[in-house]
Amino acid sequence: MNPKEAREMFRYKISSETTANMCLSYLQANLITLPSQYAFEFLLFCTRNPKACPLVEVMERGQTTSKLAKDSDIRTDLPRYRIYRNGVFEEEVTDIQSHWRDDFVTFLIGCSFTFEKALLNQGVRMLHHEQNKVVPMYKTNIPCEKAGIFSGNMVVSMRPLLQDEIDDSVRITERFQSSHGGPVHIGNPQEIGISDLEKPDYGENVEFGSDRVPVFWACGVTPQNVGVSAKPSIMISHSPGHMLITDQLEEYK
Amino acid sequence: MNPKEAREMFRYKISSETTANMCLSYLQANLITLPSQYAFEFLLFCTRNPKACPLVEVMERGQTTSKLAKDSDIRTDLPRYRIYRNGVFEEEVTDIQSHWRDDFVTFLIGCSFTFEKALLNQGVRMLHHEQNKVVPMYKTNIPCEKAGIFSGNMVVSMRPLLQDEIDDSVRITERFQSSHGGPVHIGNPQEIGISDLEKPDYGENVEFGSDRVPVFWACGVTPQNVGVSAKPSIMISHSPGHMLITDQLEEYK
Repeated sequence: MNPKEAREMFRYKISSETTANMCLSYLQANLITLPSQYAFEFLLFCTRNPKACPLVEVMERGQTTSKLAKDSDIRTDLPRYRIYRNGVFEEEVTDIQSHWRDDFVTFLIGCSFTFEKALLNQGVRMLHHEQNKVVPMYKTNIPCEKAGIFSGNMVVSMRPLLQDEIDDSVRITERFQSSHGGPVHIGNPQEIGISDLEKPDYGENVEFGSDRVPVFWACGVTPQNVGVSAKPSIMISHSPGHMLITDQLEEYK
Repeated sequence: MNPKEAREMFRYKISSETTANMCLSYLQANLITLPSQYAFEFLLFCTRNPKACPLVEVMERGQTTSKLAKDSDIRTDLPRYRIYRNGVFEEEVTDIQSHWRDDFVTFLIGCSFTFEKALLNQGVRMLHHEQNKVVPMYKTNIPCEKAGIFSGNMVVSMRPLLQDEIDDSVRITERFQSSHGGPVHIGNPQEIGISDLEKPDYGENVEFGSDRVPVFWACGVTPQNVGVSAKPSIMISHSPGHMLITDQLEEYK
């Protein structure tokens, strides 16, 4: 299945499954849609926090087709969406056409699928894949730089690596600027405000031995959290793991 | 004179002279102020065109003190400003307090003063300095990437270099990402739509022999031109050559 076929499968409600492991060579993106009154401050937040919020595309007021996905309609082409009103989760839907407004602005934000594949290609094992878990994610005490009403701490994802894999993994992921880039922290979780590594705030716990070191990358849940916390009148995001699949081949940037 | 003293000299109207050759080690910035209704699209324009519009700071709605300049007030601390209404130049003033509105958003954009100094330090002669001219600038046929109402072609500045200086000059200026970065064109001016190099659209003609090659860098006049062309109800910019002097030492980025 190519990306266009996958998008059509979601558009015509043939499926609303997770996009994890789908169209593996192609960039997948987080989606955040906001009324235009919030667009300047949210864009400013993303530009001030590029590690947590690597923009792959900003879709202008009312625009529904992504430049990265031919003939796409971001109102129908993702498997699942979440609607938040005034900072409160309202419902999960498979289509946002009935919610759409001409003053909506959409932010497509990179995710870490891209660099995981590059790490795997270098022989770096991804234990969460092997344990069939969603990558563990944690709230930290690392503050993002505020922009207008948007503020909050960074959320990170964690992958336990062998000591001698770390240098290469840093070097490789730093090249993926549109997928969070290099790690934000290596080692002791408490230094970034994580008290219990076995209890992730999102995703699932991954087991690892004492030969491995936890390595933390900025995570695309950050902009979603920050967006909701600002209590915009309405905000729409993709459902976790249910992303926009673009036509863009994942490449080093 | 340090930057704070220079800003106070302008604030208290002791002088309204050009900031060229003033506080030479410090970053100077172009200023563009717009009502917040234009802020998202102008910010998006800058992020889509980082070579022409390298943002050094975005000041949020109503903010008058730059983080880069202690105790500054951008309404008084530049020597001269220009007011445009609906895309038409209205007046040049030395103070914008009476024009200020709480919904104004201000963009501070890098300029090429920074890399000129680095080039001079490497022994690269700046002929326009030697000839006591304002650097020549040209409209080109290089389109900027549009954002909302903001669109237009790039304006470039030109410095004639000896063939064997070019590689080093490219390498040096590429490191100044907040000051337009590396050249956008080297050599034949007609390839970028410049028909007569002796007739710059802004600045002054610089004479050079056949041992030199014209090298073109993206120029901060671009965002100003693009801003005016979009005919915003009001736009305020610094007067050419009359910039904000910040406290930030100019450094490689």
